[in-house]
Amino acid sequence: MGSMVIQENERGFVRVDWGRTKNMFGPENGGTRYLQINITEYSPGGEHTLHRHPNQEEVIYVLEGEGISRTKAGDQPIRSGSFVFVPADTDHATINLRKDVPLKAIIIKSPTQDRKN
Amino acid sequence: MGSMVIQENERGFVRVDWGRTKNMFGPENGGTRYLQINITEYSPGGEHTLHRHPNQEEVIYVLEGEGISRTKAGDQPIRSGSFVFVPADTDHATINLRKDVPLKAIIIKSPTQDRKN
Repeated sequence: MGSMVIQENERGFVRVDWGRTKNMFGPENGGTRYLQINITEYSPGGEHTLHRHPNQEEVIYVLEGEGISRTKAGDQPIRSGSFVFVPADTDHATINLRKDVPLKAIIIKSPTQDRKN
Repeated sequence: MGSMVIQENERGFVRVDWGRTKNMFGPENGGTRYLQINITEYSPGGEHTLHRHPNQEEVIYVLEGEGISRTKAGDQPIRSGSFVFVPADTDHATINLRKDVPLKAIIIKSPTQDRKN
């Protein structure tokens, strides 16, 4: 497939336990081979609890809100302009500290397919 | 290496022909295996002329400004909230239409190393 340009609002959110997410590009949206790009909104007070992706790297770029990135290294504050790098097979959690607004972020993963151990 | 959190302003820009860029994460910044994440500001009136990455996919997410994404499919307007997907080995250019402000974007590439044909 070829190049494509889309606006954030051209994709619809789906519910997840920690809020809502939409896939912007992936194998089924644009035919990517390596990149999986989502926009995720963590609900006010919400938390994506500790989990790991055995084979996928992840970068989280925070667009709006205030929260915590939790890893073995401890809790670190995140806000607009924060970048989080999570290597493959590494426990991490993301927590929205605000009770009134979502924590909005771009979630970037590669490769596109994770594989369970 | 482990997880890490950094702020956008913890990295310094380097000049490029079309403006300035800074690497947020890559093999030398965080020890990524797959992801290369930059913030790029295309200068007012600037243009990153047509080029291709033989083996890397690229996603551009526009944070600020107004511009054009140019590919074989034609010119498409981009602005805050636009996502551009460029498959590997595909000609693309990015043009800042504004004469007064940068076009600011996150540039996401995978895998980290390109290979010349």
